Amino acid sequence: MGVNVAVVGVTGAVGTEMLRVLERRDFPVDELRPLASSRSAGKNIIFRGKEVLIQELTADSFEGMNIGLFSAGGGISRKFVPYAIEANCVVVDNTSAFRMDKDVPLVIPEVNANRIAEHKGIIANPNCSTIQLVLVLKPIHDAVKIKRVVVSTYQAVSGAGLKALEELKKESQHILSDKGEFNRNIFPHQMAFNVLPQIPQSDAFLPNGYTDEEMKMINETRKILEDSSFSITTTTVRVPVFRGHSESVNIETREKLSADQARDLLSKAEGIVILDDPSRQLYPLATDAAGKDGTFVGRIREDESVENGLNMWIVSDNLLKGAALNAVQIAEKLI
Amino acid sequence: MGVNVAVVGVTGAVGTEMLRVLERRDFPVDELRPLASSRSAGKNIIFRGKEVLIQELTADSFEGMNIGLFSAGGGISRKFVPYAIEANCVVVDNTSAFRMDKDVPLVIPEVNANRIAEHKGIIANPNCSTIQLVLVLKPIHDAVKIKRVVVSTYQAVSGAGLKALEELKKESQHILSDKGEFNRNIFPHQMAFNVLPQIPQSDAFLPNGYTDEEMKMINETRKILEDSSFSITTTTVRVPVFRGHSESVNIETREKLSADQARDLLSKAEGIVILDDPSRQLYPLATDAAGKDGTFVGRIREDESVENGLNMWIVSDNLLKGAALNAVQIAEKLI
Repeated sequence: MGVNVAVVGVTGAVGTEMLRVLERRDFPVDELRPLASSRSAGKNIIFRGKEVLIQELTADSFEGMNIGLFSAGGGISRKFVPYAIEANCVVVDNTSAFRMDKDVPLVIPEVNANRIAEHKGIIANPNCSTIQLVLVLKPIHDAVKIKRVVVSTYQAVSGAGLKALEELKKESQHILSDKGEFNRNIFPHQMAFNVLPQIPQSDAFLPNGYTDEEMKMINETRKILEDSSFSITTTTVRVPVFRGHSESVNIETREKLSADQARDLLSKAEGIVILDDPSRQLYPLATDAAGKDGTFVGRIREDESVENGLNMWIVSDNLLKGAALNAVQIAEKLI
Repeated sequence: MGVNVAVVGVTGAVGTEMLRVLERRDFPVDELRPLASSRSAGKNIIFRGKEVLIQELTADSFEGMNIGLFSAGGGISRKFVPYAIEANCVVVDNTSAFRMDKDVPLVIPEVNANRIAEHKGIIANPNCSTIQLVLVLKPIHDAVKIKRVVVSTYQAVSGAGLKALEELKKESQHILSDKGEFNRNIFPHQMAFNVLPQIPQSDAFLPNGYTDEEMKMINETRKILEDSSFSITTTTVRVPVFRGHSESVNIETREKLSADQARDLLSKAEGIVILDDPSRQLYPLATDAAGKDGTFVGRIREDESVENGLNMWIVSDNLLKGAALNAVQIAEKLI
């Protein structure tokens, strides 16, 4: 007895990964319904070795479906999630559309799977940069209570979609061949061999000077940890990396946690892999994390600039644990 | 009446920039003596439109020289600076060899030019990532006293020399052409389309888990600001950028400084350029800072995670203000 799964945005960077994650985790799919815009409808995707026709996303797309995995942008989710709910198709939404709604659980299964049961038709998947951060903060918060977190991110361009990946490749090639001016469609500035302190690349900044991405990390972290007793600030930065977000994280805790204790604590936590042997130049790298399920932590050091401080370096595949994998893990808990 | 200037490491990434900076600032050079290893001796460099023969660096290289600009690595400085001093040639040393010596002034002219006069033959140029940071911290510290600083860097590969620049180009080309395994000589891991939480790329980590570069930033900042009442922690990261270091800087001050006040304060400080208009997607970028003398500051925002907090993004050309320009500015104050 399997379930019927609709994947919305199936041709995108995350949608493509969702199919692969469903396959390799042997998710009990009975019928798979790949959904996309009219541009992609009529083409095929491959699922479990067979071609499956992509259908155009419409109000009727969710009839007979049990689970809908959405990853086609906030606008699409806002418009089509109500149709899915009406058709009794439970939604796992990877966009930011409903994340901060009171009635919508925001879930990282290793952290707060217990919230899934409370859903009223929608469970939200957190932002990619939030997931890998909170997965690591949670065991620390449980052990010694976090007081304050300062995060700077090094985010891969795949977070901006397949076209962004293509643009980085083309622009890099262009610069290496000394071809002069390059016509960009995706990024507001040169992305190749540069770092941009703005994510997302199109949205306006908020009145407080923060980007959407920065406020997402702050608000989502608070919601998932269900605690307003700690504070957090973020600076989110795009780097010319294809896949894998890195984060430089400074944590101030209420009670002392030594670097060794942190390593020990995190090594026992589900979903976390410690890669921390500087003497062998071993630390998490985006290129190593790409394609892997784990969230990798290294460069764990005590920060003596504050009473109970720790620095660490957290890396995870933004398309997997940061998106497709986390969504499918939520779906697994649902069934 | 000019001065005689020896440039040690004249063929390197910084040495080359030193010649250009001496030229465009009309530094009153009487005789220029380009010095390098025996491999480069006998070749020519161009200075003010004329070819000048590179001489091999020896114990006798400083006879008749007034100022020696050193940028050929700590080992070379430790060995040859004593010969320069013996020859009454005042040294501006861009390496880390003498920076923390009590008797050696560590100088950013805009910050502590007054220390130059105390020199006993050597003035040290701070680390590239320290200079752009402290240039910005100084006016803030003077105005409202800094309590704590948390820095994460995004450092260009030119900080690792010309061969590192070449390796990044080659590895990028290699990856874009799908050529499989790449033989690296400089970096310990893939540098193209990746970020490495280790600078420098060859040195061991310290027992506290920090890299040399991280401790340099901490110790040098304290020495230059001549204050032990504030604390600082750093995570230094190499990014695939050719030129221009970026820094995500979180500052906690003792008294309140609003974002507007910080912008106003910094815009009046020598050497600093404010680029901070998010509505026009204007913020400092490594690619814009490359080749420029200024230190650019943007993304100035209040950090509400702490009582008096500020976030900002600081970018400067690591070869210019971070090295050659600062050294020549010190030399200018000397004469």
